[in-house]
Amino acid sequence: MQPVAILGIGQTKIDEQWEKSIRDLAVEAILAALKDAGRESAGGLFVGNMMSGIVNSQNNLAPLIADWAGLKGTEAIKVEAACASGSAAFRSGLMAVASGELESALVIGVEKMLDRHLHEITAALATAADADYEVDMGVSFVGLNAMIMRRYMYEYGWKHADFAPFAINAHANALHNPFARLHHKITVDDFEKSAMIATPINLLDASPIGDGAAAIYLVPVESVARGTRILVAGSASATDTIAIHDRPEALFLSAADKSAQEAYRQAGVKPDDIDLFELHDAFTIMSALSLEACGFAERGQGVRLGLDGEITLKGRIPVTTRGGLKARGHPVGATGVYQIVEVVQQLRGECGETQVPEARIGMAQNIGGSGATIVTHILKRE
Amino acid sequence: MQPVAILGIGQTKIDEQWEKSIRDLAVEAILAALKDAGRESAGGLFVGNMMSGIVNSQNNLAPLIADWAGLKGTEAIKVEAACASGSAAFRSGLMAVASGELESALVIGVEKMLDRHLHEITAALATAADADYEVDMGVSFVGLNAMIMRRYMYEYGWKHADFAPFAINAHANALHNPFARLHHKITVDDFEKSAMIATPINLLDASPIGDGAAAIYLVPVESVARGTRILVAGSASATDTIAIHDRPEALFLSAADKSAQEAYRQAGVKPDDIDLFELHDAFTIMSALSLEACGFAERGQGVRLGLDGEITLKGRIPVTTRGGLKARGHPVGATGVYQIVEVVQQLRGECGETQVPEARIGMAQNIGGSGATIVTHILKRE
Repeated sequence: MQPVAILGIGQTKIDEQWEKSIRDLAVEAILAALKDAGRESAGGLFVGNMMSGIVNSQNNLAPLIADWAGLKGTEAIKVEAACASGSAAFRSGLMAVASGELESALVIGVEKMLDRHLHEITAALATAADADYEVDMGVSFVGLNAMIMRRYMYEYGWKHADFAPFAINAHANALHNPFARLHHKITVDDFEKSAMIATPINLLDASPIGDGAAAIYLVPVESVARGTRILVAGSASATDTIAIHDRPEALFLSAADKSAQEAYRQAGVKPDDIDLFELHDAFTIMSALSLEACGFAERGQGVRLGLDGEITLKGRIPVTTRGGLKARGHPVGATGVYQIVEVVQQLRGECGETQVPEARIGMAQNIGGSGATIVTHILKRE
Repeated sequence: MQPVAILGIGQTKIDEQWEKSIRDLAVEAILAALKDAGRESAGGLFVGNMMSGIVNSQNNLAPLIADWAGLKGTEAIKVEAACASGSAAFRSGLMAVASGELESALVIGVEKMLDRHLHEITAALATAADADYEVDMGVSFVGLNAMIMRRYMYEYGWKHADFAPFAINAHANALHNPFARLHHKITVDDFEKSAMIATPINLLDASPIGDGAAAIYLVPVESVARGTRILVAGSASATDTIAIHDRPEALFLSAADKSAQEAYRQAGVKPDDIDLFELHDAFTIMSALSLEACGFAERGQGVRLGLDGEITLKGRIPVTTRGGLKARGHPVGATGVYQIVEVVQQLRGECGETQVPEARIGMAQNIGGSGATIVTHILKRE
């Protein structure tokens, strides 16, 4: 496999973007990434998106975006892996360049969710779970995560407030990210008093959806000068059962473990070598489980990293340095691309007040469903 | 790019499969392909599917199928490119193996369409067109193709009956394909008298939808002995505007031309070297346009190949040798995989009464939207 580098990145603000269509959002991010890369076209377009067919009545999204972005004729496909669609599209673009089949690839994650009523979005999000054996029983996607969180609290003895540091850290970091959806600080008191959604998950455990797009330009590594380049050092994807009740251990993200271990192996690194970790904090419980499965904490002890301050910018493993899903926002199929864009910003030293000092190796992990599809990437500056 | 071979194929009958769910259909094809390949697992699963989110309320389809097929933990993604989803998934699996990232790939195309009312399916199919600028004007997917066909007849002076050979040939060949949906012969008289759908497209111009799945097992070419292997000699994908009114020439499939020329170049062949062509006859007009764009006929003269008998098994370029979309059936996201499976059957000499004598080089072309995404593959026996 030929090594691949990231030449350019782009993103839109995540927000309620009433005045822009899904194609407008995608093109805004693409043009930013092309400008950043100093390119005008690409060998192929890989679109990460979860729900355009349901929410925007638009399948065949990839040629639509290629056309609108002025990339007419370019090969273009959409990759769907629920909330992991963005990183799965990134990995598809990566393999196209790594195979030598394409000389470059543009990856775009995009989601335009807010044109529908929220109950329709809740139904659309539930398509990430098992339609026949979970959703037909009446459980929503938040409900599934609530059951996992409740079980975790029961098994390991944590109380709800112990999860607060994940949300507080994300909001603190998002303050300095102009692309983030939420720009306000929160306290433990805010966290404990926020509205209940599905016990024990309340509003501040949960990430907000949003409209947004992020893009990345990939090229063979030899086309970028050493010293300034961001290398994709590890890339791996794994799956677990889609239904939580089919897993032998509901509190262990086996696909996170599997994909992280493979990414570590490819990159030749250990968890200790990772300078920052953009994890998939769709709900606070997912932050804990992700840290545990990737080897940053023992099982049941991910929460302690938050309580001990180890997930902040000065801690042992800074997470959600640009706000994470919690405060940057979670435009589902776009999120995985945002995460990788943010790791690139850190490795380039472009993060200002939320810069992780001397960041050289960063990791991004994107989760589709309640752990059914998990994609892990490790980037290195060299 | 490392050369890749097809080690195994599998398929289900295309039908109204009321007793089987989408996961059942997928697993049936996967188990057949694994058995044919003599393997029990795969390095990755690439799912081609267009409308599971809309029709089956199921996104995140890839881990669901991986789990159900006993491939637990395996990397798995879904690729969507409207009716070209199957071939796009095949090409993604191909690049994963060609890059050396995976040691094998299982490609599955699956669609379970008939659990919904037909007006819902018509709406779901329309998501392949431009939602904002075509569908919002009230045009259906058949309507778009009808406008193309009417214009073609006007420009080149053909009458409706001139398109009959495409449908007659497809039905004749499907008689001998046990996996085909339709098993009855038709005549020019039947063709002319069938029910009108959207003038000038009547029922026998149009392919039937259906429930079905097809699967292919891919490996690096060196792992298969020469003399018995089916090589993927050419693979290319291109796009055009999604809206027909944005094209300078509505009667020319530019993405078919572009992807076919690239596939010819990779394979080192010309149209004359192709022994059979599984083309995308969603409507009879698409057969004519595909033959023209791929260099088998001059513009406006694709219809003549049918009238002259050149598309039959003994003609210059046999098409739809197993029944095509018209009579084998068109389970939209699965179709592209069926086409490639059928080319493999021909190159292996397994087609009995519809065997193309001494077939050595076969082509498959899959179209998403009214020509927006077109993927062309050339296979060689060697």
